[in-house]
Amino acid sequence: MTTVSPLAPAHFPDMPPVDGVRIATAAAGIRYVGRTDVLLALLERGTTVAGVLTRSKCPSAPVDWCRAHLKGGEAAALIVNSGNANAFTGKSGREATKLTAKLAGEAAGCDPRQVFLASTGVIGEPLDATKFGAVMNELTASAAPGKWHEAAAAIMTTDTFPKGAAAIVRLGATPVTICGIAKGAGMIAPDMATMLAFVFTDAPVSARILRGLLKDGVADTFNAVTIDGDTSTSDTLLAFATGAAAARGAPRITLASDPRLAPFRKAFDAVLANLAEQVARDGEGARKLVEVLVEGATSQRSARKIALSIANSPLVKTAIAGEDANWGRVVMAVGKAGEPADRDKLSIWFNGIRVAHKGERDPGYVEAEVSAAMKQPEITLKVALGLGRGRDRVLTCDLTKEYVAINGDYRS
Amino acid sequence: MTTVSPLAPAHFPDMPPVDGVRIATAAAGIRYVGRTDVLLALLERGTTVAGVLTRSKCPSAPVDWCRAHLKGGEAAALIVNSGNANAFTGKSGREATKLTAKLAGEAAGCDPRQVFLASTGVIGEPLDATKFGAVMNELTASAAPGKWHEAAAAIMTTDTFPKGAAAIVRLGATPVTICGIAKGAGMIAPDMATMLAFVFTDAPVSARILRGLLKDGVADTFNAVTIDGDTSTSDTLLAFATGAAAARGAPRITLASDPRLAPFRKAFDAVLANLAEQVARDGEGARKLVEVLVEGATSQRSARKIALSIANSPLVKTAIAGEDANWGRVVMAVGKAGEPADRDKLSIWFNGIRVAHKGERDPGYVEAEVSAAMKQPEITLKVALGLGRGRDRVLTCDLTKEYVAINGDYRS
Repeated sequence: MTTVSPLAPAHFPDMPPVDGVRIATAAAGIRYVGRTDVLLALLERGTTVAGVLTRSKCPSAPVDWCRAHLKGGEAAALIVNSGNANAFTGKSGREATKLTAKLAGEAAGCDPRQVFLASTGVIGEPLDATKFGAVMNELTASAAPGKWHEAAAAIMTTDTFPKGAAAIVRLGATPVTICGIAKGAGMIAPDMATMLAFVFTDAPVSARILRGLLKDGVADTFNAVTIDGDTSTSDTLLAFATGAAAARGAPRITLASDPRLAPFRKAFDAVLANLAEQVARDGEGARKLVEVLVEGATSQRSARKIALSIANSPLVKTAIAGEDANWGRVVMAVGKAGEPADRDKLSIWFNGIRVAHKGERDPGYVEAEVSAAMKQPEITLKVALGLGRGRDRVLTCDLTKEYVAINGDYRS
Repeated sequence: MTTVSPLAPAHFPDMPPVDGVRIATAAAGIRYVGRTDVLLALLERGTTVAGVLTRSKCPSAPVDWCRAHLKGGEAAALIVNSGNANAFTGKSGREATKLTAKLAGEAAGCDPRQVFLASTGVIGEPLDATKFGAVMNELTASAAPGKWHEAAAAIMTTDTFPKGAAAIVRLGATPVTICGIAKGAGMIAPDMATMLAFVFTDAPVSARILRGLLKDGVADTFNAVTIDGDTSTSDTLLAFATGAAAARGAPRITLASDPRLAPFRKAFDAVLANLAEQVARDGEGARKLVEVLVEGATSQRSARKIALSIANSPLVKTAIAGEDANWGRVVMAVGKAGEPADRDKLSIWFNGIRVAHKGERDPGYVEAEVSAAMKQPEITLKVALGLGRGRDRVLTCDLTKEYVAINGDYRS
């Protein structure tokens, strides 16, 4: 897959260094040839960490590792590889994880329990962690601030473009930096995706604060993006706060109610939202970015469930791929969500054009206008239920023949 | 879509008449040209009826009608049309339903409330029920026993073959007949599917007994089939028992515990299972019939949830389309089901070949054998969880580029 998604941003963003974070990448030859496949981030002493991990009941070995060590709240290094997910690899997978943390811990001069790990790529193949040992000197020697583009490129699998986002915001009177990278999205298995995202900041925030920011932040960003409804065994989002900005006068934040946290929280959420949108823009085979808005539901939870039902419906997604404002399928998806809905109060819009109103086809809409609207690369599908004040938003992409080709044809 | 599914049975089954049921079909010109699109079944006085209807919160007008009148437990006529689903049609939809029942009631000489209705086809377009009036005389004049093939053909939409199944079984000492027809399956909208099935028997069973048979029977048949996880606004399964076999000495059954009911129940379930399997064999774009078996779950409910998670996973379905025994995606689908599962106890088989065992790739399997097995038109995917005694079975089909073409391309 060498064709870049038509929904990709024009270029990788300009991302500043984050004080206390040094980055290196290398080609360890895990699976790919002629490209980097390992990312090492070295984190200043005192870095706090928080994470959100896949809810899969069959998580990968690195996910198990992270879950066990996130409790400590401190991180000294992050090591990520592409090409092999180290998932469903049993005892050898656990040993590979342990060895990787040991090697990175030696390189970073830290306890292995302060090394965080993620792997993406083939599932079920043993991961040869000794390959990390062979490149560890090269990694530590070349580690330098600000190498975000290289970092984002090293963790790609079927991604068609590297994903990064940054923000600078004041904490108290001191500017602090938030930089994130991510990879998408289709979900799993040979040569394929898994969602990984890593966010770094120099803000001095405690692990508890970071956990809260992440928990609140994912709800409307990464947890509001769906490509195919499939959940990887390896999905991992980690946030690291080096606290290095304290040396420049940034206040230490230890209370969630601290008013100085509000602008930081907003910038942090914006970075997560930006990365999550890029994941949707790079959904396998995606030709259209689809924003599903649901309003008038009985609650926000109900609106989310209906929005996900629409966003995960193969029939809605194929209709959008076919540039068809097929509101009948939207009604179907609303109906199957199992949430309160009244057919005779439903209204549906595609890119601002109301096509159905109060349970019937909108007599006012002009087919030619809707057809033109559906040719856009970005489609907003709005559903008004007319029952209450619950609203929500979910991002997805269309379901194309390319998705089936990417996921079904590689053996033939 | 003129190509018959490669998974279709070799021919329509030989189906006997059911005493007390007369059938007629006609071309009312609802939407299609050059084919029948209305089915009328006239039912002997005293026919009992039971039904299972879509759980959609946005059901079609005919579903609302059936739900309201099933309580009475008596039926005199069934009228079904293809080409227009009369769904999301508001007040005009309710009026069309009322007029249809009135017209059929006059033809059958019965109360409109004893007329049952189903519609399948385009959603959101007003249904012109006066068209039924124009063919009603023709229908009543031509109504005759045993016209199952014609009946199954008249209700097709994107179906590539008509679906029927029959059984003869003794009730007490008297042979009784069970005949069913169905249409599938992709789910909804312009030129497309919705699951409809109608089963007729001459057995003298009360409406209450019939309700119980249907409720128990659908759990492992129609409710264990999934094509794309989408649920139509119009899904309808109705069962009619004319009781005509009483004249030949069949006992009247009014108690579910009546031991004479057991063989009948078995035959009834077999007819439902046969029809449901045909629906899976005609899934839109299907090239492979997929049976998902889950065993060793903590309960049957848990096994069903895991089986559906596998059967609805786009990644599993595209892998099967690509003839790839991609057990990593099966692990993913098990993991995302949210049910108890232990990676290190999981084993997975494709067509009897174990490819993964106790959390790792099975070292014993021979790639060439698995590749050959995956080329079969019927794939059995078995997952053993190793936790308990819960087991279940779900049928589905693969996800092909043809599915996307059928559902996305028709506008282009």
